[in-house]
Amino acid sequence: MIVSEEKIRVRYDEVDKMGYLYHGNYAGYFHVGRTELLRKLGLNDKELESQNLILPVIEMNTKFLKPVQYDEIITLKTYLNELPKTRIVFYYEIFNEKGDLVNEANSSLVFVHNDTRKPMRVPQSILKRIETYFNT
Amino acid sequence: MIVSEEKIRVRYDEVDKMGYLYHGNYAGYFHVGRTELLRKLGLNDKELESQNLILPVIEMNTKFLKPVQYDEIITLKTYLNELPKTRIVFYYEIFNEKGDLVNEANSSLVFVHNDTRKPMRVPQSILKRIETYFNT
Amino acid sequence: MIVSEEKIRVRYDEVDKMGYLYHGNYAGYFHVGRTELLRKLGLNDKELESQNLILPVIEMNTKFLKPVQYDEIITLKTYLNELPKTRIVFYYEIFNEKGDLVNEANSSLVFVHNDTRKPMRVPQSILKRIETYFNT
Amino acid sequence: MIVSEEKIRVRYDEVDKMGYLYHGNYAGYFHVGRTELLRKLGLNDKELESQNLILPVIEMNTKFLKPVQYDEIITLKTYLNELPKTRIVFYYEIFNEKGDLVNEANSSLVFVHNDTRKPMRVPQSILKRIETYFNT
Repeated sequence: MIVSEEKIRVRYDEVDKMGYLYHGNYAGYFHVGRTELLRKLGLNDKELESQNLILPVIEMNTKFLKPVQYDEIITLKTYLNELPKTRIVFYYEIFNEKGDLVNEANSSLVFVHNDTRKPMRVPQSILKRIETYFNT
Repeated sequence: MIVSEEKIRVRYDEVDKMGYLYHGNYAGYFHVGRTELLRKLGLNDKELESQNLILPVIEMNTKFLKPVQYDEIITLKTYLNELPKTRIVFYYEIFNEKGDLVNEANSSLVFVHNDTRKPMRVPQSILKRIETYFNT
Repeated sequence: MIVSEEKIRVRYDEVDKMGYLYHGNYAGYFHVGRTELLRKLGLNDKELESQNLILPVIEMNTKFLKPVQYDEIITLKTYLNELPKTRIVFYYEIFNEKGDLVNEANSSLVFVHNDTRKPMRVPQSILKRIETYFNT
Repeated sequence: MIVSEEKIRVRYDEVDKMGYLYHGNYAGYFHVGRTELLRKLGLNDKELESQNLILPVIEMNTKFLKPVQYDEIITLKTYLNELPKTRIVFYYEIFNEKGDLVNEANSSLVFVHNDTRKPMRVPQSILKRIETYFNT
């Protein structure tokens, strides 16, 4: 299992009329989480671009357990629990400042070649880097 | 069953680096869909506000079947399939200009009193209006 | 002078904690305005892409005269007042449902070649189409 | 003069089809800048809320000098150069990782009472805190 942890302060432009982090804006936070997790594996965006790869999201499931307020600093935990095959699945947990779990989510992505825009199997070079973490 | 149908043209600021409607921005589209569906029932936001009610989203599940391009006019169908109890569940389908189903989703909301910020049962007056549609 | 007029309903995800259209979201509305104005001239995005052109914004000035509420239908007027040279300048006015002027703005864009990412003079073919309107 | 400096990493959901930080998203960054500057003065949002004050933006002027790329860490400098009267004016500069100035902007805000939604003079208690910094 690979975990990445980020602190994010909720911005004014992310909050809705109720004063809560708008539920549509969690997707951007999850994006930050998996970007940082992939960066740990040496898979930053420049690396992916150099391999001409993009990673569209094909599925996302979210439970909004408690509202998050403007200006709160949340803790986002991103998990990669299994070796990716055709899809790579990330799990997310968000905690508020009190330590309460406020959000649970997962999203599935596929590796797509930027020229063909067709899904492909996870490239061997990438799989190897991920395996190193799973064998530790 | 109650259905509402909207046409939405994908804006430039909703599109990501891949040239696709960013997956996080679908939430805003679904919001438009259920706002229009509720408006049909006479439940526009002024009405809900006058009853001091807010409707936070507590769950959202989305499948991104095909990418949607910038400037495409999508068709969003929003469905209310069952009478709400403590939660009200909306289903969504998005079709592209060719008529392909590109997105399937659902989201669950709860009625919350704006002062107490506590969930409550669906108010009788609202339930009655919805029932009228289901009995037709 | 070329004018384009659009009606836009303010979405929930565009509104801030004060219940107003968030000031950062006007940029997206202006984008809609100039896209529609350019479409009138036959310069839709597919046409621009086929010429390998992009149009980054290099300057934007906005006066927020009155707040705009969630769910209001605003009227956006977009103007092209002068023939473009190296930059193309759009002017905007937004009116609320009562007809009050609520926003005045302008933005300047440059034509950039997508490969070189260098600014260029407005292409002759584009200039000609714009001139036709100014001579009418 | 009061200055505040923040580092912000450009997120995927803030980037447009050209691969640049979307020009409409700078407003949210400036918001972060002035929130942090005000926090330094002890004027965090809880403090402002307890005084029942909101600060809508009434004017914003921005020059986009160079594009900012996805995943870049920009440096945002926010300045308060003069004592506020009816309006409070913030100036902004953004630098990219190479140290190039990529954006210059300013925005003007007014203090508004949340109940009346009418502009008012800057409250004395707030003015005093700002003066302390200017006299240093």
